[in-house]
Amino acid sequence: MDFIKNYIEENKDRFLEELFELIRIPSISSIAEHKPDMYRAAEYWKKAILDAGADKAEVYDTPGNPVTYGEKIIDPKLPTVLVYGHMDVMPVDPIELWNTPPFEPVVKDGIIYGRGADDDKGQGYMHAKAFELLMKSGKLSCNVKFLIEGEEEIGSTNLYQFCRDHKDMLKADVFLVSDTSMIAQDVPSITAGLRGLAYWEIEVTGPNKDLHSGLFGGAVANPINILCKMLTDVLDENNHITIPGFYDDVLNFSDAEREMMKKAPYSEDDYKNALGVKALWGETGYTTNERTWIRPTFDVCGIWGGYTGEGSKTVIPSKAYAKLSCRLVPDQDNHKISKLVKEYFEKVAPDYVQVKVTEMHGGQAYNCPITLPAYKAAEKAFENVYGKTPIPVRSGGSIPIIAGFEDILGVKSVLMGFGLSSDAIHSPNENYPLYNFYKGIETIANFYLEYAKIVM
Amino acid sequence: MDFIKNYIEENKDRFLEELFELIRIPSISSIAEHKPDMYRAAEYWKKAILDAGADKAEVYDTPGNPVTYGEKIIDPKLPTVLVYGHMDVMPVDPIELWNTPPFEPVVKDGIIYGRGADDDKGQGYMHAKAFELLMKSGKLSCNVKFLIEGEEEIGSTNLYQFCRDHKDMLKADVFLVSDTSMIAQDVPSITAGLRGLAYWEIEVTGPNKDLHSGLFGGAVANPINILCKMLTDVLDENNHITIPGFYDDVLNFSDAEREMMKKAPYSEDDYKNALGVKALWGETGYTTNERTWIRPTFDVCGIWGGYTGEGSKTVIPSKAYAKLSCRLVPDQDNHKISKLVKEYFEKVAPDYVQVKVTEMHGGQAYNCPITLPAYKAAEKAFENVYGKTPIPVRSGGSIPIIAGFEDILGVKSVLMGFGLSSDAIHSPNENYPLYNFYKGIETIANFYLEYAKIVM
Repeated sequence: MDFIKNYIEENKDRFLEELFELIRIPSISSIAEHKPDMYRAAEYWKKAILDAGADKAEVYDTPGNPVTYGEKIIDPKLPTVLVYGHMDVMPVDPIELWNTPPFEPVVKDGIIYGRGADDDKGQGYMHAKAFELLMKSGKLSCNVKFLIEGEEEIGSTNLYQFCRDHKDMLKADVFLVSDTSMIAQDVPSITAGLRGLAYWEIEVTGPNKDLHSGLFGGAVANPINILCKMLTDVLDENNHITIPGFYDDVLNFSDAEREMMKKAPYSEDDYKNALGVKALWGETGYTTNERTWIRPTFDVCGIWGGYTGEGSKTVIPSKAYAKLSCRLVPDQDNHKISKLVKEYFEKVAPDYVQVKVTEMHGGQAYNCPITLPAYKAAEKAFENVYGKTPIPVRSGGSIPIIAGFEDILGVKSVLMGFGLSSDAIHSPNENYPLYNFYKGIETIANFYLEYAKIVM
Repeated sequence: MDFIKNYIEENKDRFLEELFELIRIPSISSIAEHKPDMYRAAEYWKKAILDAGADKAEVYDTPGNPVTYGEKIIDPKLPTVLVYGHMDVMPVDPIELWNTPPFEPVVKDGIIYGRGADDDKGQGYMHAKAFELLMKSGKLSCNVKFLIEGEEEIGSTNLYQFCRDHKDMLKADVFLVSDTSMIAQDVPSITAGLRGLAYWEIEVTGPNKDLHSGLFGGAVANPINILCKMLTDVLDENNHITIPGFYDDVLNFSDAEREMMKKAPYSEDDYKNALGVKALWGETGYTTNERTWIRPTFDVCGIWGGYTGEGSKTVIPSKAYAKLSCRLVPDQDNHKISKLVKEYFEKVAPDYVQVKVTEMHGGQAYNCPITLPAYKAAEKAFENVYGKTPIPVRSGGSIPIIAGFEDILGVKSVLMGFGLSSDAIHSPNENYPLYNFYKGIETIANFYLEYAKIVM
């Protein structure tokens, strides 16, 4: 497929400059003041899709952030691939840990740095360029649709209804998504499963005002101490979640399947060194891969209360807060778990405090059969470009809308991810190697050619 | 003592306006940018002492905030009372809960509102005015010294050395202090004991960067979860502190003494209603008064880590922090406890996190014998003004320097407090009733007259 390699080589600088333009838009979906940036990103995507050769592209309003949709219909009788991606990014806190400004992308030592460099601007934009390449080369052999949303990082709140409202428009044979990782730069993998997610904010109220810790300390429940205890009690000595009913629907994988998972390359030393920790932690009886692939979690994503400024203040605060998340696995239902956990905390709240739990966004876990034609096409595309059969893996991350697509539109998704675990997505200094960006475009272009061969 | 009442009545508006001027100075000692305000407060006190009739007054530099010292020596052979107070105040967070700006004092329904209205500008300034009253009336019958510091709320860090450096200057028969509360507006009390204090900041570090909670959740220790567990483990199911050696030096009060403590007026319903809680909390086997008077505590004064902004972020943070304090009781040594707790946390830290504990300010507990001549004079002064013998109580609060005065200068302090538990010291909407302010001045003036009678 020399024409693919050649086109990329000839246009690589422009591809990168176009991606930088997209990264420069600070489209943080969880912060309301960035709403205008969401529209700027949506318009940018509309133009990118049209410039690449689509028949049409449009920015759609939703009750939240906009959605960009575009399509190239060669022949309605041909199969249709729908590319899904997201234009929104995570917040940038703690900003002081970034080595370069998050929305001023740079390349250093062959690596792009910037918020969204990988997740999902870098990975998403590869699809626009692979599509352009096939259009300009006259090699596109199936219909292509693009669905780029602005709320992936906050649970795709409005995309579910958008799908329900546009079932005909979104009709496709498969969804193709690059928003996951591969095992290593030279070890391709395809993500055959995703964890689900549930998220809450908890507010614990003790006394009706902040109190002097001397005058009242020892006689009044301190909401921080109580919150810490409530959160601690959720995990037992084996780091098993103690909330009654939590594991009821968890799929227990067979010993044979767990043996297969152990074949994925994994070095405990490398893993520990990359994270800078002396020891790993997790549920007793499971390996690191199992802990992140097939077991649910309970993590405190944020906590705050009392005096957090310079120096000291001797206070018993009135309130303490935490943001909590659980990663979920097949066949847990995120709505059921969300309600279960909310009711648990409200029930175990001791009578010397008041506890309020707010359910936030969530999503279902997902499974992709490795016998799916589009999975096979993706496998072949990786073989063509990397010379290796990609390993089917599962991801601990969540793309809740993937399960939603199956639910609402009846379409499976294939997750062709090109990220690396070192890309620091959601963290300071998010990055994405140029190598992965260009190889990704090449592999995606190969996918279309292979998919046409398999399904026609 | 009609001349006392009359003088106060004739000058009450001026007294209040002068106090307001002092409250308007935002002298927050724990925030470095307020250092110039500390000097403004120190100069204000210098002028107040001189205007009231002192022979001299001076602002002294220290390595931290300034100290104002002044004196009126009638006759070196006469007994000397040293008035101790503090010009510094606590931070004002959470600022949004104040009904009026903290540094713009107002009177509403007979109550002064503002940061420091009670602690310790309102209570401290009563002494300046009682001294003025006796000077202008020609009734002062002993020597008076004033020592007003700027670091009480941050542990009087530099006042210990100041005392060591000025032992002659600070020579006195007794220290007189108004920085505590009375049982109720018509139930005077004298504080015969104070709790000590130790304070720490703890930093728990997990992975070397913030992580995506999906990709890593379940396989890496989350420093917030671990911090919560470490803090939770400090208290057992009886809310007894589990740190080995913590209670070694705690004075066990006899059953007879505990019976006496039960005689202090106390209504559980009133206490709960004032705090807006449905149930009280504390160490099993002790009453509310015992819990705050004679038992040590472990409170988390502040906690923070991870994402605490709007919306949600699915992150495992690299670090989590808390500010911790213990109230201490006779005969616990704050230095010993400070070291004990630091070493405890560093020792129990699991090997999947790193724990750093910083020791912050602290202070010893204090006992005042109720047979002290100055205690008797204070008792008589309250009887004169309130028509009731004040009840000897203990306070859960700490004024660490009080034990320091005894240590360094060999002088006992008498704690004549006029605050109320409803004054919200250290909290939003700190306040102080006008009634207490004027009655306080009257009682302090009476103290000098009674003290002269007893000791001469």
